[in-house]
Amino acid sequence: MKIDFKHIAIIGVGLIGGSFALALKQQGFKGKITGMGRNKKNLSKAKKLGIIDNYTTEFTEGIKDADLIMLAVPVGQFETIMKNIRRNLKKGAIVTDVGSVKAQIVKKLGPLMPKDVYFVGAHPIAGKECSGVTCASADLYQNARCIITPGPDTNNTALKKIINLWKTVGAKTMLMEPEEHDVIFAAVSHLPHVVAYALVNGIIKVDEAILHHGGKGLRDMTRIAKSPAELWRDICSHNKKNILKSLKMFSSSISNITKLIERSDWKGLEKEFIKAREARQPLESN
Amino acid sequence: MKIDFKHIAIIGVGLIGGSFALALKQQGFKGKITGMGRNKKNLSKAKKLGIIDNYTTEFTEGIKDADLIMLAVPVGQFETIMKNIRRNLKKGAIVTDVGSVKAQIVKKLGPLMPKDVYFVGAHPIAGKECSGVTCASADLYQNARCIITPGPDTNNTALKKIINLWKTVGAKTMLMEPEEHDVIFAAVSHLPHVVAYALVNGIIKVDEAILHHGGKGLRDMTRIAKSPAELWRDICSHNKKNILKSLKMFSSSISNITKLIERSDWKGLEKEFIKAREARQPLESN
Repeated sequence: MKIDFKHIAIIGVGLIGGSFALALKQQGFKGKITGMGRNKKNLSKAKKLGIIDNYTTEFTEGIKDADLIMLAVPVGQFETIMKNIRRNLKKGAIVTDVGSVKAQIVKKLGPLMPKDVYFVGAHPIAGKECSGVTCASADLYQNARCIITPGPDTNNTALKKIINLWKTVGAKTMLMEPEEHDVIFAAVSHLPHVVAYALVNGIIKVDEAILHHGGKGLRDMTRIAKSPAELWRDICSHNKKNILKSLKMFSSSISNITKLIERSDWKGLEKEFIKAREARQPLESN
Repeated sequence: MKIDFKHIAIIGVGLIGGSFALALKQQGFKGKITGMGRNKKNLSKAKKLGIIDNYTTEFTEGIKDADLIMLAVPVGQFETIMKNIRRNLKKGAIVTDVGSVKAQIVKKLGPLMPKDVYFVGAHPIAGKECSGVTCASADLYQNARCIITPGPDTNNTALKKIINLWKTVGAKTMLMEPEEHDVIFAAVSHLPHVVAYALVNGIIKVDEAILHHGGKGLRDMTRIAKSPAELWRDICSHNKKNILKSLKMFSSSISNITKLIERSDWKGLEKEFIKAREARQPLESN
């Protein structure tokens, strides 16, 4: 597939940004990939691994010739970075992101774009047990879904280029309104993360020294609690309303089950378990 | 390793009972394995797969020559089955189980043993995404832990034979008091299962039609909600007090996180996430 960009600047070269760069190279991308971030050691490692072609910690310098700028740091840093680099962006450049929240991002970043620079928001649904650039892999996005969230003002040509780009690295793209995205992912992604953290903290409240007794089930259930805390703090702050709503629904399920156990209503409890077991089916075909 | 038994009767030939039979055969067990259960079709399948040597749905018939009887059905059925078969048990026979709860089981089943028949409770920590005899595998217990829970009246020779048996199929055995077992596994196993069911039910309360948007994280987190509902209903009813206590601790963690998000206390939230991330470490080395 043809790649519409010649110089791609990735701000945040970790698992997500690094895998994106590797996937592009695997697809025969011949242009330049500049890595940017705060941590020189990390960037130097990424270069040694052949993930990026060059790097800088001076964002205004790194983006000035880029025709695609990808924000792949925690979402809480997006606005500051954009305010810092906006005056140096090249005419015709496209800015995109990989954040797990979209409505606030689209609303905040869109108006920061100078004339002839376009923002298109995206959220690739991909992850791994480990984080950081050493975990990056060229096949992370193969058959992964990538939600693209155009707003009413999104430039159509830029949108098509971003769709194309994600298809090139193997993802199945899907368009969604930013607000709709945030409602859905508050429930199916942000809530589960919060629950995983809370589950670990609940268990150590029972007894600090028993977690090692857990089996594969607990390990799998809390695997996402290994995600960087800063990332999920930012996601919570940027999707507060929807996450609180999801937490409310979840808490009501927990209190429902608690009541059934308190009342020894085993028939009712079994029904509740069966309901979950059946509702879960769609996840199997993902 | 020498196997101390010649005729083993397994009541409930599913994933756990079936894998145990397969593992024994792989270790060169030359005796007879009789499968028992309510479902003739399932038993016939188990025989065709070479998992058991013969089968019957008449429990009193199947156990009468057995020197080891293993209960591998949901724990809610143990007492009725024991009352039904106890008069037909052979002198010197050992009865064991694989239930995920222990205190009530040990307390109820111990006194039901006739003279010269011995009960030893056990709980192998092993599982799989799928259930049923077709999922049974000879290596399910390789390097798995198996908790053995002798009570004050447990016969020492019988205990040693059960420890040996689990070692033979590859498990790492560990002794624990039945009550201690139930406190620990309420927190590290029963609570996570209940939370997995509640998570699915919470998400469909937000919107019935969004679960398919979930990624690998949600799939892994809710995988254990695929476990048979009957099994977990019985576990909840047999470990009610401890599970309610664990649920209380978990609910307080959830409400703590909810409050931090409501108050936009992002520093506090990050701390809560970091605490979980660090506490989770022991699970990695399992």
